[in-house]
Formats: sequence, C-alpha cells, structure tokens
Amino acid sequence: MKSFSYINPTRILFGKGQIAAISKHIPESARVLVTYGGGSIKANGVYDQVMAALTGRSVMEFGGIEPNPRYETMMRAADVARAGKADFILAVGGGSVIDGSKFLAVALPYDGPDPWDLVTGKAKIRGAMSLGAVLTLPATGSESNCGAVITHQGLGAKVPFGHPSVYPVFAVLDPEATRSLPSRQVANGVADAFVHVMEQYLTVPAAGMVQDAYAEALLKTLIAVGPKTLADPDDMDARANLMWAANQALNGLISVGVPQDWSTHMIGHELTALYGLDHARSLTIVLPAMMRVRQEAKRAKLLQYAEHVWGVRGGAEDTRIGAAIERTEAFFRSLCLPVRLSDVHLKADVVAAVEANLIAHGMTALGEDKAVTPDVAKQVLTAAL
Amino acid sequence: MKSFSYINPTRILFGKGQIAAISKHIPESARVLVTYGGGSIKANGVYDQVMAALTGRSVMEFGGIEPNPRYETMMRAADVARAGKADFILAVGGGSVIDGSKFLAVALPYDGPDPWDLVTGKAKIRGAMSLGAVLTLPATGSESNCGAVITHQGLGAKVPFGHPSVYPVFAVLDPEATRSLPSRQVANGVADAFVHVMEQYLTVPAAGMVQDAYAEALLKTLIAVGPKTLADPDDMDARANLMWAANQALNGLISVGVPQDWSTHMIGHELTALYGLDHARSLTIVLPAMMRVRQEAKRAKLLQYAEHVWGVRGGAEDTRIGAAIERTEAFFRSLCLPVRLSDVHLKADVVAAVEANLIAHGMTALGEDKAVTPDVAKQVLTAAL
Repeated sequence: MKSFSYINPTRILFGKGQIAAISKHIPESARVLVTYGGGSIKANGVYDQVMAALTGRSVMEFGGIEPNPRYETMMRAADVARAGKADFILAVGGGSVIDGSKFLAVALPYDGPDPWDLVTGKAKIRGAMSLGAVLTLPATGSESNCGAVITHQGLGAKVPFGHPSVYPVFAVLDPEATRSLPSRQVANGVADAFVHVMEQYLTVPAAGMVQDAYAEALLKTLIAVGPKTLADPDDMDARANLMWAANQALNGLISVGVPQDWSTHMIGHELTALYGLDHARSLTIVLPAMMRVRQEAKRAKLLQYAEHVWGVRGGAEDTRIGAAIERTEAFFRSLCLPVRLSDVHLKADVVAAVEANLIAHGMTALGEDKAVTPDVAKQVLTAAL
Repeated sequence: MKSFSYINPTRILFGKGQIAAISKHIPESARVLVTYGGGSIKANGVYDQVMAALTGRSVMEFGGIEPNPRYETMMRAADVARAGKADFILAVGGGSVIDGSKFLAVALPYDGPDPWDLVTGKAKIRGAMSLGAVLTLPATGSESNCGAVITHQGLGAKVPFGHPSVYPVFAVLDPEATRSLPSRQVANGVADAFVHVMEQYLTVPAAGMVQDAYAEALLKTLIAVGPKTLADPDDMDARANLMWAANQALNGLISVGVPQDWSTHMIGHELTALYGLDHARSLTIVLPAMMRVRQEAKRAKLLQYAEHVWGVRGGAEDTRIGAAIERTEAFFRSLCLPVRLSDVHLKADVVAAVEANLIAHGMTALGEDKAVTPDVAKQVLTAAL
C-alpha cells in the first residue's frame, strides 16, 4: 500500500425527507443560487421541497444545465449569480448539474480573463464559493467528491478538473428523489458507478486488501440492485442501496493507497465529445474491450475480479478471465446498455477520430502504468467495433 | 436502511514517514501537550520522530497514561496542560492514550465542578481542545472517531462517552510505528477491531447491503492479517492492512443507517473494571457466548456471517451457526486469546458480580433490540464459564 492523505469533508444527509435538513447547513444570511437541469425536479416535487427548506433565505435560480454540462452554459449561470450577489450554490440534480455547479463555484471568485483556464490547469484554482448538493440521480459520486468534468462546446473538449475547495458542504441522498427517473438514466447511473469502481480496482495487485474488498462489495451491490431497481421502480431498498453504493464508488475511499486507471473514462469522454454518446454508454462500450486488450497487464486483478465478483472458479486462467468479461457484458446488456460501437451505430471511422482527439488533448499515456498510448486506444476501439 | 447524517472530519495520514507531516496540520503558534503511555514510544523511536516534527513549537508532555485510561490520571494531565497553557493535544499511542486525551480535551475547557460529569452525561459537553493522534497500536479506531471510554478508579466504573468535538484533527497511521508491539498487544488489537465490526454487523437484517459487505470485508481482512502479523512481525503488508482495517472498523462508516448492538462491549467493560482483564480479552470471552445465547434473535445475520465470512454453506441452519461460532473461537484461540472465563481463571461468582454492576450502571437493556437484560447477561456469562 502506498502512503496517502485522506479526508472527505462532505456531510452526507441520507434518507427520506432529508431535503428539509439543508436549512441547518446553509448559513441563515446566505444568498442562494439554486442550479438545476431540464426541469424534472419541478415535476417530481424535489424543487418544491428545496424551496420550502430555503424559506427565509434569499434565493435565485438557474435551470437548464444539460447532460455533459457546458462551459458556455455555466458562464451564463455566472451572470445570474453575479447579478443576484449569490454567495452559496445549491446544486439540485445529477452529476451534470453538480459538476457544472463545481465549475461555477471556482469560476465566480476567479478574476482572470477566462475561467476555462482553471479547468485546463493554465490558471490555478485558489478557492471556491460554498456549494451544497441535493442528488436526484445516483451515478457519478460528484455529490461528495472534489472532481468534475466540463465540456467546452466551442473547443469540442470534455475535460476533468478537481480541487479540494469544490467538495460540497453537504450532500442530500434521498432515495425518494430518484423515484421518477427514466429507466435509461437509472441504467446509466448503475453503469457509471460500476465503471468508477473498476477504474480504481482493475489495475495491479497493491496489497490493499480493504480497498479491494470494498470495491468488490460495491460491484456486487450494483450487480444486485441495478436490475432490481429497473424491474421494480418502487423497490425502495434497492434504490437506497444503489444510491449509497454509487456514492461510495467515487468518494475517494476505495482508491486510497492503491493505483488507479481511468483510461476507459478518458477514451469514453472523447466518444461523448465527438458523437454525443451518454457518458455511461461510452463506458460500457469501452470497458469490455479495454479488459480484453489489457488482459496481460491486468491478469492478476482480472482473475481476482472473476472469482470474487462473479464467483468464477476452476479452469484455465484465460477461460476464467473470458468468462468474467462476458459476465460483465451480460450485466450491461441486462441494463439495456450497449457494449459495442455497432450497438450505437458507430463505425470504423471512430477509431481514427478518437485517436486524433486523444493526441490533441494530451491523453497519450493513460492507465495505471501509462501504457494506454493512442495506439493501444486504437486497439481497444477496434475491439469494441 | 434508516436515515442518517454522516461526516468524518479526521484527516488520515497513512504510511511510512507520515509522522513528519503533522507539522503541516498543527498551527505554528500552538502550545502542544504531547500525551503518551508507558514509554514504549521512547524505545521505538516514535517519540523522537514526533519531537522532530514539532521543532519550533512550544511543547510540553505528559506520560504514563495506563491501559483503560483513568479519570484520576487525566486530571493530573490537566494540571500539566493548564500550567503550560497548552492549546493543542497530541496523543501518541494506542486507544487508551487517545481515549484519555479525548477526556482531557473536553475536561480542559470545562468550568463546572467535576469533569467526570461530562462522561456520565450529568453535564453537557460544549466543546473540546483541538486534538491530533499518532497511532502506535491498531485496535480501537479511536484515532478517527468521536468516542472514548474512561475508567473512574475511585468509583470502579468504566464508562463510554462521545461528542463530535473530540474527533482528532488528524490521525497518523504509520505501520512502522507498530513494529515493536508485543504479540499480546497485536492480538488484542486484532480482536478488538474484529468485535467492533461484529457489534455493528451481527444484529438483524436492515437492507444495508454496502454496510454488510464492508463489515464482511473488514472481518475477512482481520482474519487474514491477524495471524500473519503475529507470525512474521516484519510482514509490513499485513501490518498496513491490519492498521487500515482496524481504523475502518470503528470510524462510523459501517454503522450508518443500520442497527448496532454493543452489549458484548458493555458486559466486557464490567469484567475489565472488576477484574482488570485486557479489554480485548473480555470481548473474546463474551462474544462467542453472546452469539450462542442470542442465536434466535440473530439467526438471519448469523447465517449470513457463517456463509460470507467463513464460507460455511449447506447443512441445517443450527449446524452452520454452530460452525461459525466455533470458527470464531478458533480464530481467537489462534491469536492466543481466551474464549472462556476459565481461560483467565475466573469462576462462577463473576456472574452475579457483573450482573450487579450492570444494574448499578443502568446497563439493563442492551443490544439492538434492548433484549439483553441483566438476566440475559447472566445467561451469557454462564455460557462463558
């Protein structure tokens, strides 16, 4: 195990009715900008619960944050925040709303020429406006981590950034708030959380027994509750476990002291930026191909994954690994998710286009061992055709 | 799953050499009281590392905190702290030193007649002096939680208390600092952590899939690394995993939203208060008997424990449960720990003495279902003879 420093400062408010508790965690004098997405929170009652909890506060709002939240959209949100002198951001939605709001939180106090520089690293993040989150879609873990991914429409780029100042002060995880989600979003969320765990687990053995076993615990939970939540939207036990597992999947805990990969995500981001694929669907296409192409480098962990997550024992190593990859694909398919580029009607020209983008964005040495070069990415995409 | 609010504000500094990092997390102007136990930290180099890291700070010290730290001892520490105008406590040691220092942290700012009232609940804890921890014994989890147990020698009472203000600001977990521990303390630590997990896990099913699987992950890790650490004190991978597992066992994470028991601990505390038993040894004696006496109330979780932790499958339910309890006892015995009162030369008179103490201390309705009355405790102790 490597040395590490770990703290997660986000207070989790979990369970039915916890939206009401936000009033205790937002300063009484706060001027709150409520950010949200396409308006589903107005249909499902979450908006009303939030506004009721904010009674007595000065409140303004900005809606319309899209999936894969855009720099351009959030710059308009910044105008609203400045006009209303907001000093607290309350993000109500899924990972896109929260990620966009994290960018807003660092953009508002920044006095340089272009806040996009904070994302690319050209300028240094020095602080952020306080942020809270009310989660409506279990998926990204953004509600209690310090990372975000922003898309610059003008530049055709989807870029991750992170800074300790963007940990939300609190995150409300009320399974009831996820009840009206369309199946497609539930499935996407399950897959996103699953691949988050895999990026932190499927590397090389590093003697992190607790980290490995926690990761396996989350994978098995997602495998159990994902299909259940889709089959019975009223199964609140399944929803609650999905929400907690997706949170734990990317709050920093399972990756302490062990290597991480994230190459599947980086290739997936290019697919999304180029072809508008749902983030999760880019991952379910890339991951199985990545496992096949990187089988030798990841042999030990693939065998552990096969046994501990899928119960695959006995037989030749390659057979066990093959079975685990097939079980993974079958799991994604059971959620009605694609596992090949052809499933989303993409063809061989994707390979060169993604390769060119990876090179353009400096993503030329990905993975825990930096061995996923553009050439390896090409092999992965070819295997995913 | 029940609703919950969870945050753990302690920064974990894990790994070799992390003692040096404390200087970044203690204010430069701080007047630091370093607290420790019997002086082993002077023999193993930890004291020197701590003092080197504190170079430039105003430092005073108080040594001699005993196992099952006493109110009386910590009141003497308070005199030292007041005389030196300490404003930061750095606890260097195991759970006893940290627990004692937590009491000190709440006692120092208290202006009532007797700080013992803060432990019993007669007076309210309103704040605490800042506290950091350098852990030398993986066991209690006290380094990153907000609980402590204090013994009042004069009253013959061992009483737990807790308050959010006593979370350490940071906790250094350097496996190297545990290297010179005697086998008995290593074994005690493994058992203590194991029983901590059991008290949060072996209750009734509550649809906490992540919590259950995390608990099982910790139990299996402790079963794997406990005997390894004893067999080969230089196995640093085993030590590191033991240290991380013992921390996770009681940092609040695995108990969110699910029931807890703690009856084994409460009965164990009386055994320690009356007969001076090591804390962990009181637990390894009480737990197997508790599992037998409470078999019906805990049937579902005992079956889950048998299968997931010990791989016991097939056969009648009672046979599987019996096997799991026997495996638990064999595990404790493999660590050279007692599993019967007779193993520590205690006899039948213990039963009435502990019962009387439980009644005297108001411990008359223990367990997740409050069903562990003094009469049930008597059955447990009788089963443990």
